[in-house]
Amino acid sequence: MIRSNYIRAQVALFCSLAAISLASTQERAPVKPRARDLSVPFDGTPGSLNAITDVSGVTVGHTTLIAGEGKLQVGKGPVRTGVTAVLPRAKDSMNNPVFAGWWSLNGNGEMTGTTWVEESGFLEGPVMITNTHSVGIVRDAVIQWRVNHGQPDPTGYWWSLPVVAETWDGWLNDINGFHIKAEHALHAIDTAASGPVQEGNVGGGTGMVCNGFKGGIGTASRKLDTKDGGYTVGILVQCNYGTKDNLRIAGIPVGREIGADDPHAGTSFVNDDHGSIIVVVATDAPLIAHQLKRLARRVSLGLGRNGSISGNGSGDIVIDLKMLPNDKLGPVFAATVQATEEAIINAMIAAETMTGIENHKVIALPHEKLREVLKKYNRLAK
Amino acid sequence: MIRSNYIRAQVALFCSLAAISLASTQERAPVKPRARDLSVPFDGTPGSLNAITDVSGVTVGHTTLIAGEGKLQVGKGPVRTGVTAVLPRAKDSMNNPVFAGWWSLNGNGEMTGTTWVEESGFLEGPVMITNTHSVGIVRDAVIQWRVNHGQPDPTGYWWSLPVVAETWDGWLNDINGFHIKAEHALHAIDTAASGPVQEGNVGGGTGMVCNGFKGGIGTASRKLDTKDGGYTVGILVQCNYGTKDNLRIAGIPVGREIGADDPHAGTSFVNDDHGSIIVVVATDAPLIAHQLKRLARRVSLGLGRNGSISGNGSGDIVIDLKMLPNDKLGPVFAATVQATEEAIINAMIAAETMTGIENHKVIALPHEKLREVLKKYNRLAK
Amino acid sequence: MIRSNYIRAQVALFCSLAAISLASTQERAPVKPRARDLSVPFDGTPGSLNAITDVSGVTVGHTTLIAGEGKLQVGKGPVRTGVTAVLPRAKDSMNNPVFAGWWSLNGNGEMTGTTWVEESGFLEGPVMITNTHSVGIVRDAVIQWRVNHGQPDPTGYWWSLPVVAETWDGWLNDINGFHIKAEHALHAIDTAASGPVQEGNVGGGTGMVCNGFKGGIGTASRKLDTKDGGYTVGILVQCNYGTKDNLRIAGIPVGREIGADDPHAGTSFVNDDHGSIIVVVATDAPLIAHQLKRLARRVSLGLGRNGSISGNGSGDIVIDLKMLPNDKLGPVFAATVQATEEAIINAMIAAETMTGIENHKVIALPHEKLREVLKKYNRLAK
Amino acid sequence: MIRSNYIRAQVALFCSLAAISLASTQERAPVKPRARDLSVPFDGTPGSLNAITDVSGVTVGHTTLIAGEGKLQVGKGPVRTGVTAVLPRAKDSMNNPVFAGWWSLNGNGEMTGTTWVEESGFLEGPVMITNTHSVGIVRDAVIQWRVNHGQPDPTGYWWSLPVVAETWDGWLNDINGFHIKAEHALHAIDTAASGPVQEGNVGGGTGMVCNGFKGGIGTASRKLDTKDGGYTVGILVQCNYGTKDNLRIAGIPVGREIGADDPHAGTSFVNDDHGSIIVVVATDAPLIAHQLKRLARRVSLGLGRNGSISGNGSGDIVIDLKMLPNDKLGPVFAATVQATEEAIINAMIAAETMTGIENHKVIALPHEKLREVLKKYNRLAK
Repeated sequence: MIRSNYIRAQVALFCSLAAISLASTQERAPVKPRARDLSVPFDGTPGSLNAITDVSGVTVGHTTLIAGEGKLQVGKGPVRTGVTAVLPRAKDSMNNPVFAGWWSLNGNGEMTGTTWVEESGFLEGPVMITNTHSVGIVRDAVIQWRVNHGQPDPTGYWWSLPVVAETWDGWLNDINGFHIKAEHALHAIDTAASGPVQEGNVGGGTGMVCNGFKGGIGTASRKLDTKDGGYTVGILVQCNYGTKDNLRIAGIPVGREIGADDPHAGTSFVNDDHGSIIVVVATDAPLIAHQLKRLARRVSLGLGRNGSISGNGSGDIVIDLKMLPNDKLGPVFAATVQATEEAIINAMIAAETMTGIENHKVIALPHEKLREVLKKYNRLAK
Repeated sequence: MIRSNYIRAQVALFCSLAAISLASTQERAPVKPRARDLSVPFDGTPGSLNAITDVSGVTVGHTTLIAGEGKLQVGKGPVRTGVTAVLPRAKDSMNNPVFAGWWSLNGNGEMTGTTWVEESGFLEGPVMITNTHSVGIVRDAVIQWRVNHGQPDPTGYWWSLPVVAETWDGWLNDINGFHIKAEHALHAIDTAASGPVQEGNVGGGTGMVCNGFKGGIGTASRKLDTKDGGYTVGILVQCNYGTKDNLRIAGIPVGREIGADDPHAGTSFVNDDHGSIIVVVATDAPLIAHQLKRLARRVSLGLGRNGSISGNGSGDIVIDLKMLPNDKLGPVFAATVQATEEAIINAMIAAETMTGIENHKVIALPHEKLREVLKKYNRLAK
Repeated sequence: MIRSNYIRAQVALFCSLAAISLASTQERAPVKPRARDLSVPFDGTPGSLNAITDVSGVTVGHTTLIAGEGKLQVGKGPVRTGVTAVLPRAKDSMNNPVFAGWWSLNGNGEMTGTTWVEESGFLEGPVMITNTHSVGIVRDAVIQWRVNHGQPDPTGYWWSLPVVAETWDGWLNDINGFHIKAEHALHAIDTAASGPVQEGNVGGGTGMVCNGFKGGIGTASRKLDTKDGGYTVGILVQCNYGTKDNLRIAGIPVGREIGADDPHAGTSFVNDDHGSIIVVVATDAPLIAHQLKRLARRVSLGLGRNGSISGNGSGDIVIDLKMLPNDKLGPVFAATVQATEEAIINAMIAAETMTGIENHKVIALPHEKLREVLKKYNRLAK
Repeated sequence: MIRSNYIRAQVALFCSLAAISLASTQERAPVKPRARDLSVPFDGTPGSLNAITDVSGVTVGHTTLIAGEGKLQVGKGPVRTGVTAVLPRAKDSMNNPVFAGWWSLNGNGEMTGTTWVEESGFLEGPVMITNTHSVGIVRDAVIQWRVNHGQPDPTGYWWSLPVVAETWDGWLNDINGFHIKAEHALHAIDTAASGPVQEGNVGGGTGMVCNGFKGGIGTASRKLDTKDGGYTVGILVQCNYGTKDNLRIAGIPVGREIGADDPHAGTSFVNDDHGSIIVVVATDAPLIAHQLKRLARRVSLGLGRNGSISGNGSGDIVIDLKMLPNDKLGPVFAATVQATEEAIINAMIAAETMTGIENHKVIALPHEKLREVLKKYNRLAK
């Protein structure tokens, strides 16, 4: 691995997922409503995009694969899957690591590269999210990307341990058909961009189910007060967990209020919670590795961070860096929790009803019905 | 994942390994000397094969890839790599998990599937070992194997999180050429067999370097006294670590005794310790998950074990099992440490001098020179 | 340590605290309302006592110390502290361990004995909870208890690593006065009893502050459906965390609704979250150590369990036990989360306004005001 | 806890130890031979004292308790125990934390305070080592020390989570007599000094047994090459583990060579390995928390370190610090391993034959016999 000269953005990881959106993130149109547009109340102050890309340097790319309908024919489809790439410092992510920590609440999943993140305290390269059975192809593709684009390695001992996470999309997708190919992973990296982030049925989120409704990719951010350092915390989730019965939005049991006989009712599929969620946290607050792990563990988040290493290259004995004192972490914790809550709801609001293999249908969370329920409980934001 | 009906062999994993041996393990010929044949002294009593396959049910398969010579051309070679598969209960490993624990001494490596091993306490499927940049292709191939051979899954929620470990063979092998293909992984699984295990430049061990000499695959076993339960502990290592300067055999500084100007001297390559080792421990002692992790942590080993679950299938509420009391673990610890020591030396004794990319040459540990050094220090076994 | 012959109840621990209640747990009178009596809605079905003592064999004892008023004089008071003892199988806890797992969400605290719990998979003896600066005296007192009451140890190598947790009561209590003595710990153990459990300002919970109001000890339980095995999960918390601003009950922002100028307003003390919580989970579901840790980690709980070891004493090689399959754990997870939620609210409902050192005053959560807020948001239970 | 203004020395901890040496460390006389004086060969270059106190700022104090003879009367004796204090930056340790990491190879032991070390990345106060059943009294005494000597705490939320480790001395000592009192712990802290460190039967090491011979306290250090930064690594061990059968010195099976019928033979007591070891590593290399943990895990050591934080007090948002790049850690790892090896042998060489409760006798490793065995195997240092 190549040593870092500087550290701009940090990344924290929480265990889990990801699509060829033929479009990069900037081409997002038409504009969809997000949770705040529906008057769902949240705490804290979001950044200008209310997205992980509010953290300077962070870019996101999706590859979304949607093809075929009807009966499952393994290897043929239908296909409802993808890959999402999060680059902590855009293309430079491949050459310069960021401090990183990770934590898993429920180990029922895969995130490659975590042993090295734990050992080194660094993330080298992007965070990739895809479906459970395509982790391997995406992992090796990241190495391929670096072989294709990386600078020569003077040490001669170059090696790479990419971070790839996953959630399971086998309810909608021909997951055992292995439709993700190396070029889909490369496309997600190559098209990663700053600016607004596509949410819902895109990238790794394409085939996901969350709390009995359609899930997928969601994002949000928080800007800390100037007195707390003015840092930004950005979240991106791939959500694929939960049951309708347990769904609460703004503390209200929305899932139960939308009854089984309601025309907006969720699919009967998710009566058990088989799922998982991947949360990527990025921040420009100067945190070091064990603090990132602490956040990841505490808020059930892996946390990304942004240090400031001004070491001057390979001959150095020592790296100078900055570190936020432990007793200043409270606002960062709070921002992480708040933005995660909102990112998950954003994913559900953005996701659209999808029909996949065997005509399995997962409906989107009905927007108007959600507002009715919040109103019943006096919880619409002013 | 499919629930277990019974548990016969357990597996413990220690973080690190990797070959198309066109031959399965039984076809081993001609017979090579092993460490004991050279009068290297060891503690404890080995099983009949002095191999991991002394644990009933365990099978091992290698795929070894050796092709080309001379200058490195990425994607063309030279190729010095492979894949090794360890199946805790032969082919039935795919359908019935074993208790498992894992631990990493040095997190500078990848072992996929470990988050689920930690969470569930089980290993489902084989342990695969290959080179660092081929972990992904091997991982997905294990899922492919199961898709090809698995029985129908009545739950409809089938997923898989294979365990694949690695060490780096880029000194001898065109590692960025991605020469390992899915069929090489499938071949290692399909040809896995009981009986003697090939050691040295085979399978994942093909391109490895250990303690300044050629490394690779090694194995050993220990049989406990009847008073300690009569259990068997088997070890398989893929060793790729260490420096000549630090090499001690039977406590003797063998590496230093073989001077740089000695015709048997090791390559100058390994003056830094870049390496790692993967240790797979299998046992038929009835240990449960946290005990396996304890062994893995203590002896710097992941430990495999063999329980006895006689639950009767999917509708059951409770699994009956047996567990060795903690205060009976001492002999199992000792057997693990002893067999690991011997397996590593066996790997070095079996390995043969190899020339790889850019004519990098790694010589084998010279057998006669080793005996001379042990004699000088009065350490030849009687 | 003495080996177990059988295992009845299991215990899971979540990192944090505890009083001479001169009364044992049975003498509870007069009866106080609990959260359900105030129509706070909860999920799941409680056991007959809605307490941790619904798990057969579990006993609880408190020692509550309340003395003095006014200005702090270190070593003299005022005193607002105590010790709580939870015995997983009553007095027999001292001789027969239970399977146990533990996990810490926020490591800002002490829980002795956890390294051995992690290593052995067992809890030997009681779980004690007290104030931060009295952990040592309570720990050694548990050993003293065993020296006083234990049977002779035939091995001659008897040693003990007690589990003692804590939260900080220095806002109300002369914590640096070291008022907890060995006899207070012994009294909590000696008076531990089954039946209803005292909640609020008792035992280790005497001086605690929770979510801007008075905190303390709380308990709840859940009874699983017969189809899920009919097991019981019991929770006991010592809660000392949170801020008024973040307090939500049944999803409603109760803390914010009770304004700063409200006569019921909480103390201004807790504008930062300095606190922590200790959660003890006991269950008679047959879980083994790594499953308990899994629960502890997942639900931010350490989980206690109740296995069934019928090994026959010290000469045995193997222990027979039962283990719930991983895919049957869902209802246990749910019960743990539900009972924890209720136990915390029970602690706050039971706690009474307290004035401690320097006339620091922490008011109790106002019951009628709570009902008004729940009504405003249409969340009173039917 | 009070925030750090600067960090000079770091400390890493490896799980376990403990004497009223009425003398402080400087009063050491007469001079005893150490392992090097007996021509035991070691790798690496020691510091000027070959002791943990070679790391600037580190001080060590012992309290050794030896009283009584003959039959055990619990509470009366015989007494063979003590307390050792290691202060990473002398008395200032109480007010200014150092970065710290810890790791346990064998969790059969207690080290309080580790949850907070893991969470915060810091050690606040000294590392104390004593016998297993006196951990509590020593822990609370450290808080008492701080209450007695600490500066006023402006936050009003002062709390303390001391680090206290242990090993078991019940073969020689009336461990259930609880002879360690608070004043013994305070004395070890108050008399801690730089300069040579007493080894053998002192402090927490008074009653220890190691590898079948008398054990106790040992220390050593290594000075890195200028090209590696010129840092110092210091080790202090309390060793109480192992069996005679497994004792190897300089790779030679010394334990087996000293036969059971040899007049120098070790006690028959330690035929099982009941023991443990505490290793404290201090360094002035600029490592941060996760790097310290990495060392602790890798070399089976907790590692202490010495950073350089020049933050200027409580209002700061950011701490400036220095961090050694991960790829420069190799020499620090090597120094730690080398100094640990020597510290353990130093403990055994310094320890003297002791008779304790019930006339249990543990003989010291015979110096001349050791030299004879090393000579037989051609392993005496030149």
